[in-house]
Amino acid sequence: MAIKTPHVTVDGVIEIYNEGIFQGIVLIERENLPYGHALPGGFVDIGESVEDALKREMKEEVQLDVEIVELLGVYSNPKRDPRFHTVSVVYICKADQNPIAADDAKAAAVISLNDLQDMDLVFDHNEIISDYLINRIYKS
Amino acid sequence: MAIKTPHVTVDGVIEIYNEGIFQGIVLIERENLPYGHALPGGFVDIGESVEDALKREMKEEVQLDVEIVELLGVYSNPKRDPRFHTVSVVYICKADQNPIAADDAKAAAVISLNDLQDMDLVFDHNEIISDYLINRIYKS
Repeated sequence: MAIKTPHVTVDGVIEIYNEGIFQGIVLIERENLPYGHALPGGFVDIGESVEDALKREMKEEVQLDVEIVELLGVYSNPKRDPRFHTVSVVYICKADQNPIAADDAKAAAVISLNDLQDMDLVFDHNEIISDYLINRIYKS
Repeated sequence: MAIKTPHVTVDGVIEIYNEGIFQGIVLIERENLPYGHALPGGFVDIGESVEDALKREMKEEVQLDVEIVELLGVYSNPKRDPRFHTVSVVYICKADQNPIAADDAKAAAVISLNDLQDMDLVFDHNEIISDYLINRIYKS
């Protein structure tokens, strides 16, 4: 029985804190197609949990050791990725250093919540950011 | 580039209500390996969202039209499934009829929360039930 399911990915909404003060969240500029700005993320490997995949990808792409805060959601619209069907598990996480672009990221920056609302992101990352902002309002 | 990731599955914690009164949640007895009691669930198809996969699987296995209440969690321990690595997206959902076993389910029943705590389930479904019971306590 050959079972085929969508690919599993992880993405991180990384909150950056400087001496306990919230600065913004990390966006990258993608080195590979589709080009554009995005949350850092990548594919989950067989044999690793999604939480471990998240920590590995955040380290590889933006050189951050993140702490997971909570699961934000699971995004699986078949059209969310122009390449093929991916299911992304998205976590809110936090770090207290600045990101450094590496691996698939050409650039990385900390974006304030005000500036975030004007960004045009690839995939369905604008929808994820919208859900994140609603989540923050509920918690504040 | 051949990307390999774990298989994606969905499982449902289906709350059954009778005239608005909570009765318990649905468990099935599996027709296929691994044998035992489990939450109803199955594989996500390429081209369908996980929410649509959940509704399809609940209809196929226990003949219920479910309404999704909320995302409970994502379970991805590489050892959770003895066959191969699966990442399960688990939703709390509800229905107001009784389950009827079909497809991969040999039997289906509504189990009260009291009885649920004594059940020995396959995969990591005892862990999922434990998380579900904690979630219910927080909401009540």
